[in-house]
Amino acid sequence: MRVAVDVMGGDHGPDVVVGGLKMALEAGFLPEKLYLVGQRPSIDQALRMHGLRLEGLEIVHANEVLTMEDRPVHAVRRKPDCSIVRAMELVATAQADAVISMGNTGGIFAAATFKLGRLPGVDRGAIAAVIPTPEHAFVLVDAGANIECKPQHLVQYAVMGSVYARKVLQMERPRVGLMNVGREDGKGNELTQEAFRLLRQTHLNFVGNIEGHDLFADRVDVVVTDGFVGNVILKTCESLALAMFGMLRRELNRNVKRRLGAILASNAFRALRRRLDPEAYGGAPLLGFRGTVLKVHGSARERAWCSALLITAETLRHHVRELIAREIAAVNSVLAGQPATSASSLT
Amino acid sequence: MRVAVDVMGGDHGPDVVVGGLKMALEAGFLPEKLYLVGQRPSIDQALRMHGLRLEGLEIVHANEVLTMEDRPVHAVRRKPDCSIVRAMELVATAQADAVISMGNTGGIFAAATFKLGRLPGVDRGAIAAVIPTPEHAFVLVDAGANIECKPQHLVQYAVMGSVYARKVLQMERPRVGLMNVGREDGKGNELTQEAFRLLRQTHLNFVGNIEGHDLFADRVDVVVTDGFVGNVILKTCESLALAMFGMLRRELNRNVKRRLGAILASNAFRALRRRLDPEAYGGAPLLGFRGTVLKVHGSARERAWCSALLITAETLRHHVRELIAREIAAVNSVLAGQPATSASSLT
Repeated sequence: MRVAVDVMGGDHGPDVVVGGLKMALEAGFLPEKLYLVGQRPSIDQALRMHGLRLEGLEIVHANEVLTMEDRPVHAVRRKPDCSIVRAMELVATAQADAVISMGNTGGIFAAATFKLGRLPGVDRGAIAAVIPTPEHAFVLVDAGANIECKPQHLVQYAVMGSVYARKVLQMERPRVGLMNVGREDGKGNELTQEAFRLLRQTHLNFVGNIEGHDLFADRVDVVVTDGFVGNVILKTCESLALAMFGMLRRELNRNVKRRLGAILASNAFRALRRRLDPEAYGGAPLLGFRGTVLKVHGSARERAWCSALLITAETLRHHVRELIAREIAAVNSVLAGQPATSASSLT
Repeated sequence: MRVAVDVMGGDHGPDVVVGGLKMALEAGFLPEKLYLVGQRPSIDQALRMHGLRLEGLEIVHANEVLTMEDRPVHAVRRKPDCSIVRAMELVATAQADAVISMGNTGGIFAAATFKLGRLPGVDRGAIAAVIPTPEHAFVLVDAGANIECKPQHLVQYAVMGSVYARKVLQMERPRVGLMNVGREDGKGNELTQEAFRLLRQTHLNFVGNIEGHDLFADRVDVVVTDGFVGNVILKTCESLALAMFGMLRRELNRNVKRRLGAILASNAFRALRRRLDPEAYGGAPLLGFRGTVLKVHGSARERAWCSALLITAETLRHHVRELIAREIAAVNSVLAGQPATSASSLT
């Protein structure tokens, strides 16, 4: 297992990455090769600060950083020496198997597209977000990469999300739902109606149309939608959860009695926060590329980095990329009306 | 003020409607005429039970009910004697000014379309949902009526939502945001890019593109989107809020210490629930029709019905329907490239 970590572009710099790496190593993360890609002096300093020495660790110097202001596609072309491009090149040249980055999502996606390319049979790469629920979590694909989609793209998202849910989140037979405005067959716009028809022909555990009410009610494990709607769902959930915690805090601070109650019940609030923390799932995987790619939140701290490294190890250990390629080929041939390789042999 | 109330089709029957009416009358609701539309025996019984007598109250018997199973457009045509159709007819024949119903949303929308028709200049009626936030609330249009929209429809939703926010929710200069996948100009799909261009030409307080993160962060008062995305936002928020309350309850019940804390802080939880209760805003107005229409939640209880009656009175008092017709005419003429009547004179 060889992992390239782009240490630039986050809110907290390489320090937290190295801190998270230390936690992951203690938790059993054991890479043959680990590249830290970014500005060498600050990486050196972070390693010294944490007193970290690791066999197989290599610093790959990259002078530039892709910032939030850069227009992704342009930047990837104009900044050949930026850390995310360098990290992708390590995978493209078969020196590494996976890239982890906390940079600008659009930039990571563009770098993956240009440097790695898509798996054979995959029409569009996708971003998957893992969103916690009271019972477990669901995988939302596409969470914002492609805002205009065709029905067959949604089918491919369903395949990729299912593989990820099965292998990385250990869901046995993930329930795939098509995001729609109601549960009845025939609901929705042209895109969802045709995607519905196609999804029924696949080997997936397709449970049909779902609506917003189903998301947190343990009815679905993989939520399939175009990147516009997926982006809206992801950010709306983040915004509402934050607002509710804020309101609760404000209400609990209104008087002494409530503050006392809050102190006694503080573990409950902490547990709720932990339960809803998407960082437990490491980050958002970019699916469908010729390499394993994980996007980590820009505000990630040590614990999140530790999760990201462990999740990447799981993704590689279970050959998620290869499985996706095989299942996409099977589904493509079913949809093309040709006899498919037996889907059941794929799981 | 003459209001027709469709008392059928909810989870709790006419009892709660009459209970809510009693509360509203005590709070100053004073209709000249109030029609209770539905099955006469059960209405009679509810009135007797509550000991309610009111001058100007009239029971309009309707034998049938539009159920959740009925396909709206068919049902409105095939069940001419159902309560929602009868209630709309009272407005269509100028015997009433407004309809309130807790029936199937699609059915109410279809009945409004066929029996009332749209205001001149309005291409599509819309459903607006009022969603509470930490600071106040925002109006979401369209919340699910039209799942495929054109850019000019979004502009009309913006106009209608703005009038409602200004007059009924007392927001002085409501900030109108276009739902998108990011804040930057030029973001989005064809629909939002063109709607953005058109919205900039209107008299509205258009703040530009917004994303999910802005919804609960006090950055927008009117959220404009197509009915597919609007429906997803509305139901996702309902689902997540419910899930968070459920998780919190579960965590607070785990041990004695937490339970004690929860008792001390119980007013804080109650305040949060009240703050996030969409029923405080009476229900979802259907905008753009030749009559005032409010959809009340099927599970509404007395307090929600009281809000619905008071909100309807406000909507009529402020001539929301007439204002919408005037502002739509002004915006249509701006977009048609003709000199508009001064938009500032409209507020």
